[in-house]
This record gives sequence, structure tokens and C-alpha cells, in this order.
Amino acid sequence: MAAAAYKMISIPEAQDVVLSHTRPLGAVTVGLAGALGRVLAEEVRAPDSLPPFPASIKDGYAVVAADGAGEFPVVGESRAGHLDQLPVAPGSVAYITTGAPVPLGADAVIQVEDTEKLPDGEGGQCRVRICKAARAGQDIRPVGSDIMEGDTVLQAGERVGVAEVGILATVGAVSLRVHATPRVAVLSTGDEVVDPATAPLGPGQIRDANRAMLLAAAAKAGAEVADMGVARDTVGHLEGCLAAAIEQRVDVLITSGGVSMGDRDLIKPLLAREGTIHFGRVRMKPGKPLTFATLTLPQQGGRQMLVFGLPGNPVSSFVCFHLVVLPALRKMGGWAAPELRRVAARLAVDIKLDPERPEYHRCTLQWGPPPPGSAPALKAAVAEAAAAQVGAARCAEDPLHAPPAAAHEAAAHGAAADLGAQELWAVSTGNQISSRLLSARSANAVLEIPCAAGVLKAGSLVSALLIDDLGGMPVPAGGVPVTPGF
Amino acid sequence: MAAAAYKMISIPEAQDVVLSHTRPLGAVTVGLAGALGRVLAEEVRAPDSLPPFPASIKDGYAVVAADGAGEFPVVGESRAGHLDQLPVAPGSVAYITTGAPVPLGADAVIQVEDTEKLPDGEGGQCRVRICKAARAGQDIRPVGSDIMEGDTVLQAGERVGVAEVGILATVGAVSLRVHATPRVAVLSTGDEVVDPATAPLGPGQIRDANRAMLLAAAAKAGAEVADMGVARDTVGHLEGCLAAAIEQRVDVLITSGGVSMGDRDLIKPLLAREGTIHFGRVRMKPGKPLTFATLTLPQQGGRQMLVFGLPGNPVSSFVCFHLVVLPALRKMGGWAAPELRRVAARLAVDIKLDPERPEYHRCTLQWGPPPPGSAPALKAAVAEAAAAQVGAARCAEDPLHAPPAAAHEAAAHGAAADLGAQELWAVSTGNQISSRLLSARSANAVLEIPCAAGVLKAGSLVSALLIDDLGGMPVPAGGVPVTPGF
Repeated sequence: MAAAAYKMISIPEAQDVVLSHTRPLGAVTVGLAGALGRVLAEEVRAPDSLPPFPASIKDGYAVVAADGAGEFPVVGESRAGHLDQLPVAPGSVAYITTGAPVPLGADAVIQVEDTEKLPDGEGGQCRVRICKAARAGQDIRPVGSDIMEGDTVLQAGERVGVAEVGILATVGAVSLRVHATPRVAVLSTGDEVVDPATAPLGPGQIRDANRAMLLAAAAKAGAEVADMGVARDTVGHLEGCLAAAIEQRVDVLITSGGVSMGDRDLIKPLLAREGTIHFGRVRMKPGKPLTFATLTLPQQGGRQMLVFGLPGNPVSSFVCFHLVVLPALRKMGGWAAPELRRVAARLAVDIKLDPERPEYHRCTLQWGPPPPGSAPALKAAVAEAAAAQVGAARCAEDPLHAPPAAAHEAAAHGAAADLGAQELWAVSTGNQISSRLLSARSANAVLEIPCAAGVLKAGSLVSALLIDDLGGMPVPAGGVPVTPGF
Repeated sequence: MAAAAYKMISIPEAQDVVLSHTRPLGAVTVGLAGALGRVLAEEVRAPDSLPPFPASIKDGYAVVAADGAGEFPVVGESRAGHLDQLPVAPGSVAYITTGAPVPLGADAVIQVEDTEKLPDGEGGQCRVRICKAARAGQDIRPVGSDIMEGDTVLQAGERVGVAEVGILATVGAVSLRVHATPRVAVLSTGDEVVDPATAPLGPGQIRDANRAMLLAAAAKAGAEVADMGVARDTVGHLEGCLAAAIEQRVDVLITSGGVSMGDRDLIKPLLAREGTIHFGRVRMKPGKPLTFATLTLPQQGGRQMLVFGLPGNPVSSFVCFHLVVLPALRKMGGWAAPELRRVAARLAVDIKLDPERPEYHRCTLQWGPPPPGSAPALKAAVAEAAAAQVGAARCAEDPLHAPPAAAHEAAAHGAAADLGAQELWAVSTGNQISSRLLSARSANAVLEIPCAAGVLKAGSLVSALLIDDLGGMPVPAGGVPVTPGF
């Protein structure tokens, strides 16, 4: 079937098709050290309460609240990990440190700042003045106040981040059922494609950018990766490479190149013979020849393998990976919401529209005022808006904005206006031709740019899909203002 | 020196002190497969141009532009990786595929859609009708149009992401100078602290949440980690653990616990003996007893080791790691801007202010309309604002907002209003007591909440520091609207 024989579908359709053929992988058991980034396949419950004993919140003295203020003998001490303290009877107190068990008989803690050491009494007995009466329960964490025995502390489907590792350790969950991570093989294709180490290049050769890039992308997504090398442009070699990927029992094969080779597209016919092609053309720029197939493997118990045939242009590969492959890998790994996260951002410069296909324009999102390099017209408009107090009005007159405590109200209004004047800006990475991988350099998002004539003006709001962590985004020269009064 | 003897400093001061004692680590050489996430220690230049030959952008025919439209013999073909085509003389054309070298003599490419195959001529000669005249250079990428020989493709100080791996491969940079990653040792302290696998707990025992959590946090930050176990509360054991960390030549030692143990804080005196304590108390909630020291090690060539003494409460450890340790690890790894990224977010619920210390309130940021669970008063205000078209006005009347092409202008206004009505919301993780690690569950940011009396109202704008990737943030039920017309 020639390329043109495949119906052109939209990206949302393509994404739906891919996710409808993707299933979360089964559960495996990992230890605490292997849990980071994994998705829990079953809920985690607490086998005991935290704290397991009434615990002091402060350094100070465990007291009987009904005793009130006064001078008392210090009959013992309670330190975390040590249980040798005496019970505290009315009329006596015990020294206690933060986190230590409150001794039997005591029902409140007085922080050390509200006490005064006295000279020792008879027989060297320590004594202390309690300067303030306590209410019962003061500065004590009751048993189970952080976590109650039997509580579900993490749900099935939750991703394990740094804090979750701590939570798992706290409840003794050192052996966990998590979704398996997908195994992903990456194969480049093309007689012109040579290893990146090749220098100098022979006539007509180009280095293989896609394989290293897609291996990195899959690894970053948490996958186990297998490097399948470069397939030559012959049916036999390509068949051999596909067989090798099957042999390695990978869940996903990602190929790049070969899907837009005019009359000699070898990938699609091979996938059509060996499995089912679900789509072979997508209305998107870059990435039109994107192909997706599933193979059912009777020789491996009928298991299913996904194959993504990405275009050879490195930018197309980059964009297609993030839009279509990454959500599938996330779903396999157990993510309940595997799609890319969408936000709105304001264009820093004009973008020329493409009248034929919607475009995924690579950009660097940053938070702040209009970034340097914004369109001059935009800068003028922003300056004008600032002069007219439009920026300030957005917050100061915002019915939702209530200033914090009266003490710093005046400062608050000014600074809140500053905070409100900041937003997410989309800075284009420049010339978007699909061969120019520098257009993906530093990109942390792709903009969803409509298919239309003309220009989308700087200052327009557009939707953006996050493809990298904003924790490394550019910082505006003056920084971003903090909460008023902070 | 007693804890109270340390001057209480602010977090920005503490961060400045730490970064002023932190140096980027030296350069090491890694291969392409080890480059992801590293920071380049030297610039990378292209040894040759890309494309290295004039390359076709389309499948079609390589022509002599001056020939114009008409019927032509097809004298050869140019496919990527194959160099056997004849030169193209005026009056003839050659078949060509995307990415293939344009044959000598040809100066334009006509896409296959603008041609028509003709019946073969005499002697089986292929013939084609070129339906449209081409301009010289049409659909050809000139040599060096993506990358010019000698261009700097990546700068020293740039972090290597997925796209950058591809760029490095493209220019043959398979051996790279990058900053070394910090080696980080993690030590818990406390006689009450037992291994997470302990069950059931003995009297007075709690499981060690901090060690697994801090190891995960450091590994996530790209560090090589070493698990130093748990130090008992004796000077001797603690000294032994410190010596072991030094012996392992780590760049950073992170301890937790022991810094707020009332009269038996063993960490600070040890660090004061062995090195220099730069601060021992910080005005923050949680995390007040946070301690930072540097050790100069004559037995190891005078090298410097950083020691962070984090509080024992797991939330304090979590917050202090992100605010103070993480920027230091990033700086060591070569980040030019190592500090946490700050954005503004709108509070979904009221937050009670603390009159004594500024608070780092854990929250989950999400993009969209006010999230479920927002304060009822806020919801009412939002509904009212929507009714009064305030949301729509923000965009439709925004002097910066220019609608895209006229064709979808009407739709644009409605949808742009939707886009503009979305923003970053901060959903509190609940009870913020520093022992309750569940308050860090799913947190992707900490809010900077001022020290004041009263309540910060839902709807207030506050600054937020990003501590996790927003690529996994919650998705609002209806999704986030896309660019008008997309």
C-alpha cells in the first residue's frame, strides 16, 4: 500500500488509537531503593501508628497539666530511643527532647523557653521552674496523629517520588508491587545513516542523530532500552532487525526513517505483512509520515508488541516521540493520566502560520515578564499596559485577591501586582524546519499552533504541551517576585 | 556551643552562604550514552556542515529550474545513501527522495504531487511531466543550512537533554567533557531510629524515613549516592560515621536528626571541632535547626567537603534538602542557575499564617480552572467573575492579545477566553506539621508563605518554588483548552 493510501488522521486521533492499543504492564516486586519513579500497582497501608507513642513536639519538660506553674523536681528524662525514665507523678516533671516518648503520667510538654533551671535541691535533685501553666495535650503528638494504623498511605496508581520513598520507609513497605517498566528497542534505518563516531563523513553520508536521541528519550521516560543499530534499506536486513527486536522480547520498537522514502518506503509494507498498521499518515508539522502498528506474536504466547515508525528527520522523530510514544510508555508504566500536560503561554514573538498543517512549534517556556528578544511591538504594548496600570489592576482589583494580614498590606499590593504581572512566556527556538535539530535545543514545550494563513501575533495566548521539566527553565534577569511580606 | 548560640539567619542568607562555599566540580569525559542530564564543561563545535551536500526536502524530481514546466526524460535517481545517479543536464530530470543529495547540474526539486508519470519513451526511457515551473533552489536544503562547519552547536554550561543528545550525535561529539556529578553520602542519626524493614517496632522505636528519602532525592538530582546507615547517639559512633564518609571521598555528607536534641545535640559540636559551622539556625518553618558546615581535609590534599545537618523530622529534611542542598548539588554539577525556579500561583484554599516564622507550605500545583476542593467562597467569587465576563475580558480586551487568522476569529475569542481563564493553582497538601510526611505526598512545589498573623485567603497570589516536574501534575476534569483554531 503506497503512503498516500493511508488516511491522514489528526494527532488527537492518533493519540487515542495508540493509547487504546496500549495496556499497563503487569506488576513486579521492587525494593525501596528501586521504587523512585515507579507507579504502585497496589495500595500501601500502615501496619502501625505514627507516632507509635505520644511524642514530644518540643525540647522541654513533660508535666502534669493540672499542676500548673510552679517549682518542681525533675524526676527523670525522656530521650528518643531511651526508655529508662520514671513515670511522672503529680508534683513532678521529666526532662524531654523533641520526638521522645512522653512518660506515663505526664499529659503536656512545656517548651524549655518557658522554664527556668533552679539550683539543685536536697541530695542533688534537679529542680526547674515551670513559668506557664500548660493545657492537657499541649505540644504532644498523640499516637497515630501523623498516620493511623491501617490507613492507606499511598494508593495504587500513585507515582513514587522523593517524598513517597520516605512515606514507604516510614510504614516499613520495603518490598513493593509496582508496574513493570517498558522495554524499548530503538532502530535507525537508511543506507546514508552512519554511526555518530564516523569522521570524516563519506560522500552522501550523515550521522545517526535519532538513535542516541530516542534511546535517551526512552531511558528518561523510565524505560529499559535496547540499541538495535542501523538497518540498511533492504527488505531482508529490515526483517532481520525486526526479528531481533522480537527475540529480545521488547514491548515497543521505535524505528526512525524509511517511512517517507517515496516509492521505497520499506517499513510500512513490512509492518503490514507482520502485523496491523493502525495509521500511516498524521496531519501534523513536523511528523506527517508517522506510522503505528501492533504485532501479535504467536511464538511468544500471543503477546503484543507496539511499533512506532517515526520519520527520519530528527525534529520529526523528537516531536513524534513526545506526542505519541511517550504517553504510551507512561501508560505501560502505570500512569493513570499518561498524556502530556497542557498549559497556556503567551507568545514572545510573531509566529508565521502554516496553511496546510497544524504545527508543533518547539519553544522554551519561562516564567516572568516578557523575555528579552520579544517582538518590539509586544514590548511597546507591555510598557503601555504597565503605564496604564493594567498590570496592577489585574491583581489589585481582582475580586479573588485578598491581601494577607494588615501589617504588610501596603507592601502586599505593590508586590502582588508584580506577581500578577508575571506569566508563562513561550520563546521560539527559531527556524522550525524539520531537519534542524537545533530547533529542539533547550525546548521544554511544544506549542499547538493552528493551521491557518497569516501570522499569530506576539502576545497571543497559545496552548503548550510540556516535554521537559520546568525546574530548569531560564530565569529572568531580575528574578521572579516573592509573596508580599515573605 | 548551644543551639541558641547560633545566630538565626534567613533562608536567602542560608542559600547564599551555601552557594558561596560551593564550587562546580571539575570536568570528566563521558560517552554519548552517559551524557543525558550532564552539564557541558566545554563548548561543542560542528566539524562539518549539515547537510553535508545539497539535500532534497521532498520526494519528487531534481530539475534544472530554467527548464520550466514540460515533459522530460528521467535520466537517473538519487536516493539517500546511494551515489550512482548521473548528472542532470538541461532538458532532463532525476527522481529523488527526501534527504537525498541533489545531483550535479540540478538546482531545484519539484515535489511528486506536481508531476505526472508518462508512458515510457523509446528504449524504455522513463518520462515525467513537470506541471509547474520551479524557482532555483526550490525544496533544496543548501549545504550547512542546518549547521555550518565550525558553528558552536552547544555552549559550555548547557545541560544535555534529549534533543542535545541528538545534536551531539549529529556533529559526531561522541566523547564529551562534562562536569563531574557530586558524590553524596547520607547518614541518619538517633538511637530511636531503626531500619525500615523492622516490624514490629520495639518500644520507643520509629522507622528511618529520612535515609531512603534523601538517597532518592540526591540520586534524582544526578548525584552518586552512598548509604552510611544510622549513627547511634554517641560521640564516638558519630565520629566513626563522619570518618567513613571522608574515607569514601564524598563531596557532600547529609545527616538528618541530632541537630535539635535539646542539650544533647551531638552533630554541631562534632562539626565545630572538625570544620567550620557557617550557620546552625534558620528562620523557616519547617527546618529551623538546619546546620551547614565545611570541612577542609588536609589528609586528602586539602579538599573540601560540605556537610548539611538536616533536622530529624522528615518534612523538615525534605524541605531543607530542596531549599538548600539541591541548589548546591546543581552548582557542583555545573548548573549556571542552580536555584529553585519560582512561579506565581493562586491559593485554592485559605492558609493560616504563622506569626513566628515564614513557612514553606507544601502544595500540588496544577494548571486549569479552580480545582475541586477550593474554598467555597473562592468558588462563588470565580462563578461571579465568570458571570460578569471578567474572565473573558481579561483576554478579549487584553491589548496584547491579537486573534489569529480571520478564518477562525470568532471561535478564537471564545477559546482564547478559556485559555486566559486558566492559571496555576496551588492545592495544599493538608496539615503541615513537620512530622507528617504525608504533607509532602504529591507535592511539586513549596509556597513561600509570609510570617504574619491571620489568614492568607484563597485566591491570593503567592510565589511557589518548583521541587518536582510539572509534567506529572494533576489534570483538571475537563482538560485544558487548546489554542483557538488548533
